[in-house]
Formats: sequence, structure tokens, C-alpha cells
Amino acid sequence: MSLYNCCYVFGLAAFYFCYYGTTQNAVVGFAPTLPSTTTARTLTRHAAERDGSASTVSGPPYSGPSVKPILDSINFPSDMKGLDMPQIKQLANELRWEVLEAVSKTGGHLSSSLGVTELTVALHYVFDMPDDDIIWDVAHQCYPHKILTGRRSKFPTLRQQGGISGFCKRAESEYDSFGAGHSSTSISAAQGMSIAKSVLNKRRNNCVAVIGDGAITGGMAYEAMNSAGYLQSRMIVVLNDNGQVSLPTGTPSAGGTVPASQLSKYTSNLLVSKPFQDFRDFAKSFNKLLPEEMQGVNKRIDEYTRGLVSGGTLFEELGFYYVGPIDGHDLENLIPILEKLRDSPNTKPVLLHLKTVKGYGYPPAEVASDRMHGVGKFNLGTGAQYKGKPTEPSFTSIFANALIDAAIDDRAIVGITAAMPGGTGMDIFGRRFPKRTFDVGIAEQHAVCMGAGMACEGLKPFVCIYSTFMQRGYDQVVHDVAIQNLPVRMMLDRAGFVGNDGPTHHGCYDLAYLGCIPNLTIMSPSDEIELRNMVMTCAGFDDGPTVLRYPRGVGYGQEKLQSLFGYKLDNNEIPTRGEVIPIGKGRIIRGAGGMVESTSSSTRGKKRKDRIAILSIGTRLHEALVAAQEVEDMYDDLSVTVADARYMKPLDVDLVRQLADDNGVLITIEEGSIGGFGDHVLHFLALDGSLDDGNLTFRPMVMPDAYFETGTQFQQYEEAGLNARHIKGTILRLANKIEVPILEQIEQEEPQYNTTTKK
Amino acid sequence: MSLYNCCYVFGLAAFYFCYYGTTQNAVVGFAPTLPSTTTARTLTRHAAERDGSASTVSGPPYSGPSVKPILDSINFPSDMKGLDMPQIKQLANELRWEVLEAVSKTGGHLSSSLGVTELTVALHYVFDMPDDDIIWDVAHQCYPHKILTGRRSKFPTLRQQGGISGFCKRAESEYDSFGAGHSSTSISAAQGMSIAKSVLNKRRNNCVAVIGDGAITGGMAYEAMNSAGYLQSRMIVVLNDNGQVSLPTGTPSAGGTVPASQLSKYTSNLLVSKPFQDFRDFAKSFNKLLPEEMQGVNKRIDEYTRGLVSGGTLFEELGFYYVGPIDGHDLENLIPILEKLRDSPNTKPVLLHLKTVKGYGYPPAEVASDRMHGVGKFNLGTGAQYKGKPTEPSFTSIFANALIDAAIDDRAIVGITAAMPGGTGMDIFGRRFPKRTFDVGIAEQHAVCMGAGMACEGLKPFVCIYSTFMQRGYDQVVHDVAIQNLPVRMMLDRAGFVGNDGPTHHGCYDLAYLGCIPNLTIMSPSDEIELRNMVMTCAGFDDGPTVLRYPRGVGYGQEKLQSLFGYKLDNNEIPTRGEVIPIGKGRIIRGAGGMVESTSSSTRGKKRKDRIAILSIGTRLHEALVAAQEVEDMYDDLSVTVADARYMKPLDVDLVRQLADDNGVLITIEEGSIGGFGDHVLHFLALDGSLDDGNLTFRPMVMPDAYFETGTQFQQYEEAGLNARHIKGTILRLANKIEVPILEQIEQEEPQYNTTTKK
Repeated sequence: MSLYNCCYVFGLAAFYFCYYGTTQNAVVGFAPTLPSTTTARTLTRHAAERDGSASTVSGPPYSGPSVKPILDSINFPSDMKGLDMPQIKQLANELRWEVLEAVSKTGGHLSSSLGVTELTVALHYVFDMPDDDIIWDVAHQCYPHKILTGRRSKFPTLRQQGGISGFCKRAESEYDSFGAGHSSTSISAAQGMSIAKSVLNKRRNNCVAVIGDGAITGGMAYEAMNSAGYLQSRMIVVLNDNGQVSLPTGTPSAGGTVPASQLSKYTSNLLVSKPFQDFRDFAKSFNKLLPEEMQGVNKRIDEYTRGLVSGGTLFEELGFYYVGPIDGHDLENLIPILEKLRDSPNTKPVLLHLKTVKGYGYPPAEVASDRMHGVGKFNLGTGAQYKGKPTEPSFTSIFANALIDAAIDDRAIVGITAAMPGGTGMDIFGRRFPKRTFDVGIAEQHAVCMGAGMACEGLKPFVCIYSTFMQRGYDQVVHDVAIQNLPVRMMLDRAGFVGNDGPTHHGCYDLAYLGCIPNLTIMSPSDEIELRNMVMTCAGFDDGPTVLRYPRGVGYGQEKLQSLFGYKLDNNEIPTRGEVIPIGKGRIIRGAGGMVESTSSSTRGKKRKDRIAILSIGTRLHEALVAAQEVEDMYDDLSVTVADARYMKPLDVDLVRQLADDNGVLITIEEGSIGGFGDHVLHFLALDGSLDDGNLTFRPMVMPDAYFETGTQFQQYEEAGLNARHIKGTILRLANKIEVPILEQIEQEEPQYNTTTKK
Repeated sequence: MSLYNCCYVFGLAAFYFCYYGTTQNAVVGFAPTLPSTTTARTLTRHAAERDGSASTVSGPPYSGPSVKPILDSINFPSDMKGLDMPQIKQLANELRWEVLEAVSKTGGHLSSSLGVTELTVALHYVFDMPDDDIIWDVAHQCYPHKILTGRRSKFPTLRQQGGISGFCKRAESEYDSFGAGHSSTSISAAQGMSIAKSVLNKRRNNCVAVIGDGAITGGMAYEAMNSAGYLQSRMIVVLNDNGQVSLPTGTPSAGGTVPASQLSKYTSNLLVSKPFQDFRDFAKSFNKLLPEEMQGVNKRIDEYTRGLVSGGTLFEELGFYYVGPIDGHDLENLIPILEKLRDSPNTKPVLLHLKTVKGYGYPPAEVASDRMHGVGKFNLGTGAQYKGKPTEPSFTSIFANALIDAAIDDRAIVGITAAMPGGTGMDIFGRRFPKRTFDVGIAEQHAVCMGAGMACEGLKPFVCIYSTFMQRGYDQVVHDVAIQNLPVRMMLDRAGFVGNDGPTHHGCYDLAYLGCIPNLTIMSPSDEIELRNMVMTCAGFDDGPTVLRYPRGVGYGQEKLQSLFGYKLDNNEIPTRGEVIPIGKGRIIRGAGGMVESTSSSTRGKKRKDRIAILSIGTRLHEALVAAQEVEDMYDDLSVTVADARYMKPLDVDLVRQLADDNGVLITIEEGSIGGFGDHVLHFLALDGSLDDGNLTFRPMVMPDAYFETGTQFQQYEEAGLNARHIKGTILRLANKIEVPILEQIEQEEPQYNTTTKK
């Protein structure tokens, strides 16, 4: 039998089993229940039907059950233990619609949760949290878990200020075994917990890591499997394989193929790549796994699992028992298999390979190109997302289009993304230059180092990674890029606060963790015109590595750019093409020699102590300009100069000196933590002797030393004290216009100082 | 035939082939030439014999050839092209002894280079650098490569100030395709180069990554294989498998077994784990690899490779062609195989699995428990290393023993190392507590995150990673440890300058990249007593994560601790057990209220501007105390207070305020970069208003914004301007005792500022 035929027969058998298998409770020995990904999608309607939700998905508008009697009876997982199989299935259906209804009102990560609804029910039915640990990798799929673990009533506050997190969070619930937000951590965490339970002689040791086929491409997952296999740590890794590595799912990667990972190709081929005789080998290994259970083991399950197996040697070679692939939506099989694994005395790690469908059970999600991965509010009946009023283009899209402009002229420019083509704009670039776009999977380390290799040979790689995820590639930035002074362009989207993804996703630290590294040129644009200019500047700079960091959000639009920032735009149009700007040179925006004239006629007439300067980097410039205007409108005797540093490295020390010489007060502001831009300015001023004579009052305004929970970006900057009114307050206090005890400010902004009184 | 028998027969066949195979030029079809690692060692003497060096290794004293005619004729690899096989073998032997003789006089990484001597000769014979790229992973095995690529005459300067680097370095030679020092980067770099050559339509595309079985456990290597397999990038990965994952090799990992990696267990089992019929599959795949070459291919090679194959599915599943395992010391087979791979038009990545012996050809290295991995100067005839005069214990050993003390009292304390048991002292801890010591392989990400998982369950993990390697675990420190406020203890050995390993290994940045992270408690000891105290303090602190950073080097000894630091030691003995110290509190060492009395009778009588304070963190305290004493000895009118901050976070603001209030000059000093301790102090002083009135002159002394090349630690601190004489100079300048233009200092210390004149 050829491979092709084999595949064809598998497909039919799978279809047969999925459609009739569980309803008839029949056994199809040696036949897999799950089709390859290409056919899985066509089966979901049937799957929904057998879950009792058929009527709700027969066509739009879609709606859930009008009452949820089972879900209403579940406050915590312990309430589930008495349910029978029909009730469990009904619970899954009610739970799915609970998620759908809630997310339709709040927005959030939708389809990952829909894809693990059955798995969530099965895990909580079989395991006993919090004694047992379930670790959700990335954890954006945790919504059903949260609803089942005491947080149903709080669910309407999802991802809002003061509300519950969109990820698992230990501080929120004892049922959240391990917090997440970044991917590929769950196997490491589970191994740590398993070892701890073993060392501390705890009675139970059930640690379950649920990881997607995207997350398992991260190097840490491999390090963890390698270690768990070697140390033979008892644990269960559930591989939730939905064939979607990159976000938004469905985005073509380099060469137009999906997913962007050899491993994912491997797991999706597992079903058809192995000869039949492996089934017997698997049966033997499953017997070994459950030695004394085999006498009483449900024969149906045994044959079922034997019938399914078709590969997994990669995981076996890493020291795991491989079980699968299994239909991750089939509770009748999932639950007994999990029970057997739970009750096994075996201490070897197990990999349970589930095939699932992202967005399962909600047709608009299943058919959407992005599977409705992350959504705003949407119409539950149709799946249509509510669009806000049209706004300015996002910084991400501006970046992508500017890079296209540069790449048209320069064949050496290529783009790299680590499984985030949508978030980074590499999908836009990739549509224009598919062969110059490289999606390496969730592999930031590799992305940066591969960029270094490319630069060695004369390519100009733009490595596009969120600020927070660049933490994963930090050593590569230092060791492979900066020490070798290779002209890799590192594009850090989502710098600063990011809004409702919360503390795991803020890009707060890059100015500190990159600012200390020699050879880097670090810039940050204040607006959309500057972003275009800086992309062009990076493209043209070959003398060393460049970092360009910019925030989540949209541009300001031509009106504000002219009125507030002082741009003189031809025909009132924002230039569509960027220009190269000088390296290491900032600019005065407001005040003498600046783009905007001060409200107060001149700074020259003012006494030095009444001349205030704000030196901003990044998009706090807007807030600084608003504050400056308000202050000058209020007080004739004050003048406020506003400058845009543009660069953190090399620092424009001529500009810093000019501001320090001309003003009595100098305030820096940035979208970053302590140790960043403001402290670099301060460091220079100290070495330069500018702080010695008492003629300059300097204040760095940075993010406080704390984690900022979910909310809007504005709310987070409000809480951090970095909006226009805080700048204004700082100015007025330093100009002696208002009285605020200095100490209060310190305590608010710098809770790390363990003090309450000034001597 | 059982597995056991199979293994036994393999062993015999391998022995037969190795001993007689190449000298007789015979073919042993289907028989592997290389035994499993357990028998490989016994064969090396024979291997040496067939290379013509038998007489030199018949017993100590060992010596090399008295003349090196072939090596003398090779200045660059192009000079090798005309050599015949006997000459090539002779070259390898001459090269091995060249390395031995040089390293015996300088010290360095010895046995890795000895293990790849044949491979180096073969690669340079087959490939044409610099058109082709050879990327040495970690690159401590690059000595033979350097000697063959124009650097033989400079080799006596290895790892010395102004001399050549112990690693590959692009700035040093166009033959160094990619710099290294950290592991697991080579496959990423090679893929980047391969893609670049392809995108830029270069005529040749030969990129060879040479990676060890230790380095391939790093997550980035897996990310790169996953990506290269998926994108089908043309490249050759040479897996240099010597069965040594951790350093020093031979150190028992948790459970007493070596190596510390499932993958390494896997590769070492490849030879015996697969049924015979796989050989035919391999032959087929090798044919596919070389489709049109097969007509003329040397039949011997074909059968040889077919005969060898016995596994590699893990790599095949990652999208690679697997070839091996091959005897990595057998030039007669290695060269033709490399030639075939070079000439193949195939664009699929290839993994060539070599079995090698670390320290090959030098019996003292082969039998040493650490294989003489990193050595000082040694007696070439006997292999005995010259010991310096006995010194104080190293900080590493003091740490390890302090941790043992803590662990005796607290069963929850465990230790984690990422393949560096020797370097981190985990070998010492592991001998005492083998079941509480975990070696996870070269996997810093996993080490940190696993520690977080352990802490969730109540263990107290001490994650012991060099400062420079913690860069690999940075995201895990932020995302898994700090955000969750888990009490993971992170022990950063080798903080500050590390000496002759050079720029890739300095621990310069941790204060900056960790100082910005909320929830961390960061401390650094000034001496061996403090190190013990801080280990105890970390052990007892459960409220959040702790970081303890300490340098490479040895303690000061009781005499200096008493005379310079002012300790009052019972019986003149250093306490063997540490004590818990208060969190976030520094201490005055010298001056009013300090441990040492000032030479000048009192600070109180001095004018404010003549009262100088130095606030140090870490072991620059010694330099600060020397400087203070020298200044006070010279000038009666100056007093110098010296304080030890102990903590960077939480900063002891009471101490900082006291120093700022009492002195006219405040200098901070640290073994770290900009953005670190000094800038945190400065940031606080600015917010606190202490810099507003001109009563305080503040200077942060930090490492300049540059990379510091190989040299001794003292030389590097000398170059950085952070030794006692520089502190003294800074004091005298600020006290107006000497005239130094401020600008000069700025340019020297802060080359990142793009300025030459002060306005």
C-alpha cells in the first residue's frame, strides 16, 4: 500500500469513526478517529451535532443554549465529579457558549479557548486542582478554565481595569498553577512542580502541561522535554495540535505555506507517515506504561488507542511515552485516557497528542482566516466584529509599508518574524515580498541569531519582534549581534504599555536592557512621520546594529501633527515616504528654534529658574507638548521648551547640554522603566558636571517599579503618572506654582525604595 | 538477536574495523567503524598509532614530532589543497602537537581542540574559506582552525592582553565566519548565511556548522533545526558527538549519570537502538541526497556509510538528512564524505554525525576526569598542570560550601545548573546532595523556568548560572520568576570582568538588565564573609526572588579582611558559616560609624566639600578602601568615607541620603555597565531633590560603553578605569587636588557620546 493510498484510507476511516464512532459507541480497531488537518474542518459541523448543539450551528445567526443548568451547578471543579457522560458533554456545550457570549461583549482571545473547551472539562473532571497542577501554556486559552474555577461571575470584567486577567495568574486564583502570557514555558514549569512534589514526598504527583503546536516550537519547550526525558520526571504533556503555529493563523509564511515550523509539519504528518506495524509497538509501550492496570483496562480504550497510534518517535526519542493522536473534542475517549494516565504508577513523562480545531464549535471562527484568534466585541449571531470609527493607520502598518518602500529600492532587505506576522506587520511585507519574508516559528533566539548570520553575508535583516518577546532573544542581541557589530535591524513593536494584555506583555524594559549594550544604535519615533523616517534611517545604516522601538497604537493624523507638533505639511498630507535622519541627533519641537512657537512670546526674557525643558523619547512627546501648552497658557512667566531626543544611543549630548545650559529645570520622559533613557541623560549630566553647581533641577519621569495590570494604555499611563497632566504637575511643582511634598512623589513612583520618611 | 547481543557484535566489529580498517583500506560492509562511547576510549591508542604518532604516545613523557614540515608549509587553507592522504594525516598530527605545545605554555581550552583536529583539517581541505563558511559552535575548539588560517605565529599570545582570542572572532580574521563564546548559535548563523547566499544569488553556498552534543541541547539549536528543516535551507550541520554535555566533563549530574541530556543519551544510543533494516533505508536516502553522483560514487564510501547508519530519525523528523555516525578521527572516510556533501546539488540540510573523543591523541587528556577541558600551563611530557602558590578559596567554592551549610538545615533547598556543575560549584554541592542537584544541560531558559515551577510547590531552588549566560534566561527571569514574585534564588557567578575569556563572557550587564525588573531583590557581596552571609540571606528569604551576583576570583584572606576591611575575627579565623543580614540595608565600612577608622582623625572637622564618600557594590569595595586610605594618607584636609551598599534593590535610601547629606562628593563604583547601580542611586537622588542645591557632586564610576578584550581581570579593570588608582584620581580631581579636564574623562569612559567638545 502506497503512502498515498494509506492516507486516503485513513481519511475515510477517520470520517467514518468521527461521524458514527461515539454516538454508536462502536470500536473501529486500528483505525484512527481523527483525519488529517485538511479534512478535520469539514467534520466540525458533525462534531457539533453529536454534542447536542447541532441546531445552534445550522446557519447564522448563531446562538447558544437559552439556559445552562449544568454550568449553573458548577462553582468549582469539585462540583463536576458526579456528572455522567451526557452531562459532561452538555457542560462542554454550555461552557463553550458561556465563553462566546462573554467574549462577544468584552473582546479577547476567542478561538484558542473554543478549541480546548472539551479538554478543559476533561482535565477538571479527571484531575483534582489545586492539589493537581494544570499548566496552560501561553494561557490565552484559559477562559473555560477560569469559568470552571470560581471566576464565572467576574468574567464580564475580562481584561478590563480592575478585572480578571486574560491569562492565568497565580495571584488571581489557586487554580492558576502557573502564570503565563509568553509561550513555551509550561513543560519547564510542570517539570519543576513534579520534581518538587517528588523531593518533598507529596502524596499525589499529577502535573499536566497543555501546550500548543505553536508553543512547542519554542526552544525552551525542547530544553524542557530533553531534561524531563533525561530525568524521567513524572508528568503529562498534552500537545494541543491545531495546526496553527503563527498569528494570525492562516497567514502565509515564507513560500506561502502554513504552518511555519518543521515540527508542526511533522506532527500533522504523524497520522500518515508510519507503517502499520508500529501500532503493535505502541500497544506494547502503552502496556508498559500501565502494567498492572492492563488486566482491568477497558478493552475498548486499549484498542482505540492502539488503533490511533501512528508515530511520535520524535517525542519518544526525547524520552517521552507518546500517546496519540487523539481527537481532542471527543470526551468519551479523552476522559478515560486521562484517567488511565492519572492512575498510572509510571514515572516516565507522557506526551498526549491531541488533534483539535481552533475555534471549534463556532462556525464563524472556524472559517475565519485568523480563526478569530484575538477579537474585539462581536455580534454573536453572525461573528461580525464591531469596528470602531475609522482611525489613523497603526504604527505597525506604517512600519510595514515604510519597510516595503525601503525594500523596493534595496534587494538586500529581508524581514524576519517569530510566528507573529500579523502583529508585526510582516504579513503586509510578506504579501509584497514573500520570498524575502521569513517566519521562523516561536523562536526569538533563532530569529535574532539568524539575522546576524544574514548580516554577515550582506543581507539587511529587519528582525521584527515585540519588545516583551525580545527578552527571549536578549543574549543573541548581545552575543551574536552587538559584540560582532553586525548591522541587524531590530524592530521592537509594542514598546511601552500595551493595554489589556497586561504585565506579561508590556514593553517596559527594553531601553534599560538594551541601553547598556555597546555598539547598539537605539531610536524611538515620536509620531508616524518619524517612524517612517527611522525605518529609512535603519535601512540605510550599515555601520552596526540598530534598534527601533515603537508603541502599540495609531498615528496622530495630519491635523494634530500640524497644530500640536508643528509640522508644515504640503497639501496637509502626511508624507508617504520616510527620509533618512541624522544618527544621534535630536530636535527641538517647541520653543526657540523649534517647530512650534511657544505661547509665551520668548524664552529669553524669562529667569533661568522659570525656563523649563522637557526632553522626551518616543510617543510621550505628544503628552509633553500638551502639558507645555497648558502650562504656558496658565502662566505667563514660565516657558516650556520641548525636545525630542529621537535617539537613546548615541545620546545627543549637544542637545542635552544646550537644554541643561538654557533652562533651570530639565525633565525627561519615556515609555520605559528605571535604568533607561532618563538615567542615561542623568548619567551624562553627572559626568559632565552639569549637576554640580545647583543651577539645574533634573527629574526623570519613568515607569514606576511595579507591574501594571490589565486596562487601557491610557489607564496604565495614568496609573504610572506619565500622562500630560502628570508632566504638567511636575513642571508646576518644580516651578513652585503648586506645593507637593517631594516624598509623596517618590513613594508613588518608586515603591522599591524601602523608606517612609525623609531624614 | 537481542539488543544486547547486537551491541556486543557491533563492538567487536567496530574494534576490528578501527584497528585494521584504514591501514588495510578494507571494506567491512554493514559494520560500523565506531564503537559505543564506552569502548571508544580503549581504541584511541590504536588510532594514534595509525596516524603515525604511535611512538609519541607509548608512555609518558609525551612529546610531539621534532619537526613539522607539512604544517610549516601551510599558511592558509589554500596551501593544503595539493596534499595527498599521508600528508594530510601527517598534517593532523603536526597540528595536534602544535596546539598541545602552545596551550601547554599559555593555558586555554585544550581537549575540545584535540577532538576536532582531524575534522578541522578535513573541513579546510574540502571547503574553500572564506568563500565557504565554517561556523564553530562555542568556538573554544577553534585552535587548530586558527593555526591553519594565518594565525600560527600569533598563537603564543592566545588569550593574553593584546593577543588573539580563545574563540572565533570576525574582527580577527576573515576565516572566522562567526564569532562565538556562548553555545548553540552555529545552526542559526549557518542558516542565516545560507539564506543570504541564496537570496543574493551567490555562486557557492556551503555553510557548515560544527556543533557539539552539549551545545545541541540548547533550545536555540532546536529552533534553528526546526526552521532549517522547514525552510529546507542548504547547509551541513556537523554534530561533534563526544558524549560530554556538561563541564567539567565527567562530573556526575543528578543521579550520578553523565551526560545530562536525553538527547545525548539518544545520540550515544543511535548505534545500537535501531534494527538492521534501517541500513537500507539510509542507503536510499543517501542516494536521494546525491542523485546524479551515485554513478561515479566511490563504492567503498557508499557501503561504508550504509554500513554505519543506525538511526537519526530524530534529526530526520526535524527535516534533516541524517548521515552517520562516522568516526570523526578517520580522515580517509571523513574527507570523501564531506566532498560528496559539498558537491551535492541538494538543498536540504544535512546532519553529519561524528563520534569523536575529547582530548583525542593526548593520553593525559583522554584519561583526565575533566578531559583537560580548560587548563592552565602544563607539563607537556606528563600532562601535569602547574599549580600556582596556594591562594584563598574561590568565591565559587565558598558559595557552594555556604549552600551546603544552608541545605543541611533546610531540606527544601535544591541546586540547578545548566551544564556547568564545575564552574558554578554545583559539583561540590552535588557530591553532598546528589538527589537535590539538577543539571539540565545547556538550557538556561529551562533552568530558570523549572526553578519557578519548583518554587510554586515550596522548594527553594538555587539556580546557578554565570552572569553572561543568564542573558539566555532573561525572559524567564522577568516572565516566570519576577512577575509571579516566586522565591527563586538566582546565583550569578562570574559577574564583572572575567579575564581571558574576553567580551563574550564578561558579566557586565546584569545590574542593568535585572535592576529594572520589579520584585527582584539584588545583592552583591564585597568579600568572602559577605558571600556566605548573602547565601544564608537568600536561603531564608521567601517573599520573592533574589539575585546574588559575585565575581570570578578568590577571597581576600583573614589578614586583609581585618586590616583593610576592619573585620574583628575571633582567633583570626574567617567564620565558616554565614549569617542572615537585613534586606535592603548597606553598611559603612570606613569612616564615622564604620568598621575601619579613618586615618584622618575625624570627618566632622572637615569642610563639606572636603568630605568625600564612596558607595560601592560588590568587590570594588577593596579598591575603594585602598584608594580611601591612600588619599587620607596624602591629604590631611580630606576625609573619605567608604560604604558598602550590599543591595542594589531595594536600595538603602537611608544610607544614600546620609552619605549625600554628610559629604560634598559622592562617588559610586560597581563592576557593571551604565544603567546599573550608580544610575539607580543617581535616579533616587534626583527624585529626592538632593542634586538641586549644588551641595553635592556626584560621579558614577561604571564600566565604559565598550567591549573589553582578552587579558587578566586586573588589566581589564585597569583599562576600564575602575581600580584603586582611578578612584583615587577621581577623588583628587573632584577635591581640586589635581587638574584633569572633565571632558577627557568623559571621552575615555563614555565613548558612546558622539561629541568632542564641550560648549
